[in-house]
Amino acid sequence: MSFVPSIKPATAPRSSRSQVLACFEETRALTEALATPLSAEDQTIQSMPDASPVKWHRAHTTWFFETFVLAPTVRDYEVFDTNYGYLFNSYYEAIGARHPRSERGLLTRPGAAEIGKYRSYVNEAIIALIKNCSDDIWNEINASLILGINHEQQHQELLLMDVLHAFSCNPIEPAYAGTTPLPAHDSVSQTWTEFPGGITEIGFDGTTESEFAFDNEGPRHEVLLRPYRIGNRLITNQEWLNFIDDDGYKRPEFWLADGWSHVQSNEWEAPLYWRKDSLDHWSAFGLRGRQPLDPDAPVTHVSYYEADAFATWAGKRLPTEAEWETAATNVNMDGNLLSSRALRPTPASESERLSQMIGDAWEYTQSPYVPYPGFKAPAGAVGEYNSKFMSNQMVLRGGSCITPAGHIRKSYRNFFYPHQRWMFAGVRLAEDI
Amino acid sequence: MSFVPSIKPATAPRSSRSQVLACFEETRALTEALATPLSAEDQTIQSMPDASPVKWHRAHTTWFFETFVLAPTVRDYEVFDTNYGYLFNSYYEAIGARHPRSERGLLTRPGAAEIGKYRSYVNEAIIALIKNCSDDIWNEINASLILGINHEQQHQELLLMDVLHAFSCNPIEPAYAGTTPLPAHDSVSQTWTEFPGGITEIGFDGTTESEFAFDNEGPRHEVLLRPYRIGNRLITNQEWLNFIDDDGYKRPEFWLADGWSHVQSNEWEAPLYWRKDSLDHWSAFGLRGRQPLDPDAPVTHVSYYEADAFATWAGKRLPTEAEWETAATNVNMDGNLLSSRALRPTPASESERLSQMIGDAWEYTQSPYVPYPGFKAPAGAVGEYNSKFMSNQMVLRGGSCITPAGHIRKSYRNFFYPHQRWMFAGVRLAEDI
Amino acid sequence: MSFVPSIKPATAPRSSRSQVLACFEETRALTEALATPLSAEDQTIQSMPDASPVKWHRAHTTWFFETFVLAPTVRDYEVFDTNYGYLFNSYYEAIGARHPRSERGLLTRPGAAEIGKYRSYVNEAIIALIKNCSDDIWNEINASLILGINHEQQHQELLLMDVLHAFSCNPIEPAYAGTTPLPAHDSVSQTWTEFPGGITEIGFDGTTESEFAFDNEGPRHEVLLRPYRIGNRLITNQEWLNFIDDDGYKRPEFWLADGWSHVQSNEWEAPLYWRKDSLDHWSAFGLRGRQPLDPDAPVTHVSYYEADAFATWAGKRLPTEAEWETAATNVNMDGNLLSSRALRPTPASESERLSQMIGDAWEYTQSPYVPYPGFKAPAGAVGEYNSKFMSNQMVLRGGSCITPAGHIRKSYRNFFYPHQRWMFAGVRLAEDI
Amino acid sequence: MSFVPSIKPATAPRSSRSQVLACFEETRALTEALATPLSAEDQTIQSMPDASPVKWHRAHTTWFFETFVLAPTVRDYEVFDTNYGYLFNSYYEAIGARHPRSERGLLTRPGAAEIGKYRSYVNEAIIALIKNCSDDIWNEINASLILGINHEQQHQELLLMDVLHAFSCNPIEPAYAGTTPLPAHDSVSQTWTEFPGGITEIGFDGTTESEFAFDNEGPRHEVLLRPYRIGNRLITNQEWLNFIDDDGYKRPEFWLADGWSHVQSNEWEAPLYWRKDSLDHWSAFGLRGRQPLDPDAPVTHVSYYEADAFATWAGKRLPTEAEWETAATNVNMDGNLLSSRALRPTPASESERLSQMIGDAWEYTQSPYVPYPGFKAPAGAVGEYNSKFMSNQMVLRGGSCITPAGHIRKSYRNFFYPHQRWMFAGVRLAEDI
Repeated sequence: MSFVPSIKPATAPRSSRSQVLACFEETRALTEALATPLSAEDQTIQSMPDASPVKWHRAHTTWFFETFVLAPTVRDYEVFDTNYGYLFNSYYEAIGARHPRSERGLLTRPGAAEIGKYRSYVNEAIIALIKNCSDDIWNEINASLILGINHEQQHQELLLMDVLHAFSCNPIEPAYAGTTPLPAHDSVSQTWTEFPGGITEIGFDGTTESEFAFDNEGPRHEVLLRPYRIGNRLITNQEWLNFIDDDGYKRPEFWLADGWSHVQSNEWEAPLYWRKDSLDHWSAFGLRGRQPLDPDAPVTHVSYYEADAFATWAGKRLPTEAEWETAATNVNMDGNLLSSRALRPTPASESERLSQMIGDAWEYTQSPYVPYPGFKAPAGAVGEYNSKFMSNQMVLRGGSCITPAGHIRKSYRNFFYPHQRWMFAGVRLAEDI
Repeated sequence: MSFVPSIKPATAPRSSRSQVLACFEETRALTEALATPLSAEDQTIQSMPDASPVKWHRAHTTWFFETFVLAPTVRDYEVFDTNYGYLFNSYYEAIGARHPRSERGLLTRPGAAEIGKYRSYVNEAIIALIKNCSDDIWNEINASLILGINHEQQHQELLLMDVLHAFSCNPIEPAYAGTTPLPAHDSVSQTWTEFPGGITEIGFDGTTESEFAFDNEGPRHEVLLRPYRIGNRLITNQEWLNFIDDDGYKRPEFWLADGWSHVQSNEWEAPLYWRKDSLDHWSAFGLRGRQPLDPDAPVTHVSYYEADAFATWAGKRLPTEAEWETAATNVNMDGNLLSSRALRPTPASESERLSQMIGDAWEYTQSPYVPYPGFKAPAGAVGEYNSKFMSNQMVLRGGSCITPAGHIRKSYRNFFYPHQRWMFAGVRLAEDI
Repeated sequence: MSFVPSIKPATAPRSSRSQVLACFEETRALTEALATPLSAEDQTIQSMPDASPVKWHRAHTTWFFETFVLAPTVRDYEVFDTNYGYLFNSYYEAIGARHPRSERGLLTRPGAAEIGKYRSYVNEAIIALIKNCSDDIWNEINASLILGINHEQQHQELLLMDVLHAFSCNPIEPAYAGTTPLPAHDSVSQTWTEFPGGITEIGFDGTTESEFAFDNEGPRHEVLLRPYRIGNRLITNQEWLNFIDDDGYKRPEFWLADGWSHVQSNEWEAPLYWRKDSLDHWSAFGLRGRQPLDPDAPVTHVSYYEADAFATWAGKRLPTEAEWETAATNVNMDGNLLSSRALRPTPASESERLSQMIGDAWEYTQSPYVPYPGFKAPAGAVGEYNSKFMSNQMVLRGGSCITPAGHIRKSYRNFFYPHQRWMFAGVRLAEDI
Repeated sequence: MSFVPSIKPATAPRSSRSQVLACFEETRALTEALATPLSAEDQTIQSMPDASPVKWHRAHTTWFFETFVLAPTVRDYEVFDTNYGYLFNSYYEAIGARHPRSERGLLTRPGAAEIGKYRSYVNEAIIALIKNCSDDIWNEINASLILGINHEQQHQELLLMDVLHAFSCNPIEPAYAGTTPLPAHDSVSQTWTEFPGGITEIGFDGTTESEFAFDNEGPRHEVLLRPYRIGNRLITNQEWLNFIDDDGYKRPEFWLADGWSHVQSNEWEAPLYWRKDSLDHWSAFGLRGRQPLDPDAPVTHVSYYEADAFATWAGKRLPTEAEWETAATNVNMDGNLLSSRALRPTPASESERLSQMIGDAWEYTQSPYVPYPGFKAPAGAVGEYNSKFMSNQMVLRGGSCITPAGHIRKSYRNFFYPHQRWMFAGVRLAEDI
């Protein structure tokens, strides 16, 4: 089993029952498959406040379906456990009180096996509901189901991020996915693709894509671009080594003030999971354990501050999210949109045009995460899903090698704080023409 | 003496020697006038890490002229004290090591009187330089002098902010500017002015304004606006009371997640300097000590988080900086651009159009502080002035009642972190049409 | 199985091979029995920096035998895993670098099952060594084995303390030992037993006891006592409720300054595991889950600060450790020295003289933990066992209901910081005559 | 003027009016003299939470007389300022709410000059009271006056400690007492004086000394000593250098666990005010600025942890407080009891017996600060003076070079936390015979 298979969820808001059912079952099964290599202990800890335990992800995604689909719809539905509403609500103030985020790692019970039962219980109820409900109910729950599926897909990526971080804290360096290294990436020259300025549209286009999108991807709207060029590929580990070797982490002139402060207080001297084997040699810790650096692979696990400093050092800049999306829309990407490179080897030959746009590493933009013009948060708890985080974070685009296939699209807006590094985030450069 | 008089500095980059000389002397004198009501003790403390001691402001602004004008220009110039480069450099990495910001309040020496001598020493050297230097030198230093003057004006405002904060920590509630209350503001109805969408230009326009501007105000560039309307005046203390009375500080649905976290951990329940006299009655601490709230005065000393929550509660939003600047450019503001309301009473009759745009309170925009398209930081230490702060902060516009008159303009971009409250920041609302 | 059975280890330093073997096997088996009710998850977390994961206790006690018995003695001994020296060294600087204490809860691997294998591996090696080694080797390892056994017994108590703390952090309130409540304690009046002053001896007396003792229990030495009386029993939950009801936690006059600071910053208002059921009703969380308070049971889980404040409130004081030990030595305790009350019910009839001296709750003394006159720490790593903690802590005497039977004796000196509360610590009062 | 003159206060509890009056006036004048070299700025800051501003010391000691002498005695006494009770109460819970200790440095007002007026106001009232009150009143206030005088003397030492710390934070290294170095100490060999064991008495002996003592110095009581020897002089800077050169700060085997933790987290590598001039050369910052180390001067500004580690390294131990006091009582100290070495040079020839017992440096004992047997704290606010600090601190004996002459005596018990270093604390060794 590949733990990030190319499932293409039938996530169009108006999908049929059978399509949604298949997608639901595939998604729920994938989460369990992702947890399979992990012991009960592995699933329990929270290695930093930003992370959550694996079993918490398994339970929270289940709670999401229970709370937003079953409870409001199924008459006399009995929740699996009355404590779970408190334990597994993540951040929905409208739903009520919840267990403090920072204490998720203290919950040894319910255990991983019990969470498995919870998942089965809710799965059965959802499947029965999809199969048997009236058309009126179906129309009511369709969108919530699809949201729940996409929500669970997001947690699949978080689960892997969090496992990697947890394992990185263990001196014995456990490997999640075996220790066979991936084939090395080919060396690809950095070239540039130019785009003219002018007014263009970005944001989710319901009419042409007929797919699910999160609320923060709209409304589709016009933006005004200036002529720019964008790099054809992501920055590589070798290029990052060059930055380090040029004292990139020691020269404040490349850094934003807040970034420099982080460099100094956290003693950053390389990407998060790089480890020094000797004075001049680095390896990287990943889902396949500690491996020699592949010089041609995209650098990952850098913060926005590092990405910005690198771009300054290189005499370039990061693209805006409008530039990124416009590039993704207007060039031939040779089918990249449909393939995910995941933890699997990258095909040897890349597109001669833009490559690695989708599914390699989340790409930093220089755009802070703010609402699009005309955006209104939906009413109620679901309105908290995205909108309340619209401050202090930066937009990243394109998905990573651990983003579930089919979950990503070119209008997708991910967001992280500029100091965070545990996501698979990399760098593509841009510049004005 | 009014401590924020209507000096209009001759700050055009190509001003004549006599113009710059006059402006230099006025600005330097104003700083000293602002410090006059303060004892040596008042000038020494640093009441929080964001603030600086008054005498530090007096010295740092002097160091700025010494370092960026005298040292590179005057042959054999002897610095007043060789320790001062270390003590009074604020954040210029390119200049060298410096005293830690958080320890500025530990410097009892040099004393306030000694700083006065330092100021005189540098003043004399600058004045002699302006009067006597060759035309070549003059052309070289002209811009640095004007930058130094504007820099000192910024610190004049910071000085007053910091004094107010320091005094607010004292249970005996000292009054900086006497205790005579200002005349009450008139009640003005909230109305709205509409603006059409389309492409317009913002940013400092050197050709039409012939004034100084900071680097971050350019390049002037096109922006694409959607139709919007903007409030004719700032939100008042009474309106803020309504927000409080409607449990604005207790209902998470109005707040950004980061803001709500601040509300809870800091137990915010009102603007920074509001103090509860009794269960239902508030006063506000200010430069005139503790005074009853003027219901019709603009609310100030709120954070971005509070401004955003208020706007959400009101069913509106904050304007973008492009919207604000466009409004400021295109409507008749009845001369507001030239008058500062400072601590002086507001004229009873306000414009029927936009009012309080300039010199009442810094107005939050929903725009994060990022570089304008095409912006390049200048090389060297001066490049650190603005650009390295372009992350995590929000843009505020329009100046406040303690901004030196003549220092503000409609392209001016001030910036603060979204949790900060000690500046005179208020709220103007906007909405889509 | 009772998880704290009345094993009396044959821990005399000159015990026979068969005695030591039996004691080793019983002790090792008891640790595993204590862990049996716990899931792998339960064994993994570290709920606060003072606590350790259960599986860590199981591994560390094993490492102790491996490091201090097997490695120096058995030629060609192969350690079970070369990483474990780093992972499971607790605090022995002389042994080398070790995993940071605060990160013990991040080690999901090795898992609980793997630790079980480690225990078996070391058990077999130790058993073979005891059975087959030469008499010279036997004489060499005898003391280390007995130290290792007593060390593991200490960790058996820590294991239960840490489980209780971990479970106390879980809103679903798991019960370690079932939820059947213990029979209620009888009500016993507080009376006082008098002791004359004069010179007496305290400290471990090797000649009369022929038992193991830790280094810090000696040298036996003379102390000078003043006439005193000591309470016949421990302070009860009901008496503690009286203290609370008299605003004991709200009146600074009863408290040491450092204690009052803890009360305020931690909002202490009752013993650690007391939980308010309603305005006037408390229950207590324990190894049997949440149970109604037994008014006549000894209060436990109070800090030294609380014990001292209670004594001040009661107009008494805590005994010194010399007073406690002298009382324990000189009165008929009706065999209390040999019985442990553990989590089992207390016999209905108490001695008319001193009761609850051994095995009910650790009893605070007013004596800071300092070396006895003439004490010299042993050379090498073993010297770190006790002596480096001789600052900032207070001595507690008598053992608790979860102290392994046979592990405690009247010269035993336990020590904790004055703010700690997760041990089963209670209060006995004393006063001058 | 010497700022620590040899005033011998007539502090016997039954002193005459004229004696107390003279002593009051001298003590009050000395405080002002100590503040004379300091600017208003110097008197304002609080350079760390343990320290207080100089003007706060001046005000607090005045508040003490106002609160404990004038207010309860003088009919219709009007306090100088009704805010001062809140501002200048240090820690007396029984007196009421007070300004948070950590914010004393934020009080720029009242200024140093205003505090001077406060002092004069209270001085006049006290002097009038002493001169004019009835004998009944006199008998009532006599003890409080003497307590107030001794209290102020304690703050005179604290004032100098706090000034030194404040100046040590200033990169320009101000000198409080000019920069003329003290004459070097003579080199004196380390020898040992032996004392037999047995029962002896310690604690303040009212009948033979007829002097004031603090409550914590009694009751006088018997202690049981074992034979010991004690060093004839304090450990010198040169001996401390030897400890450093032998990697004393890098070898955990010498350190208590809590001490080692401090060494590492604070990166201690020398006494508090030592500064490295070059790789091998140290100077020390003191009241006379930065001066080369005098190798034969007593080391000062070390913590208990350092003192204990040094003793362990030297193969000795620290004395108990009973050993110290017995030594101080039973040997000829050549009049040391009456002379203070202050900042003045130490006489070249020391006693051939014990020297430097009084007035050179506070000497660490290995005794935690706990109440003497039979000690009862006085009722009311005065009872908070000493007793509530009887936890977590260590006893120091003998006074330092900045202790006011006449304030110290052999029964005097000073106390500090084991990590504190800003007092003039040094080391004398002892060992068992």
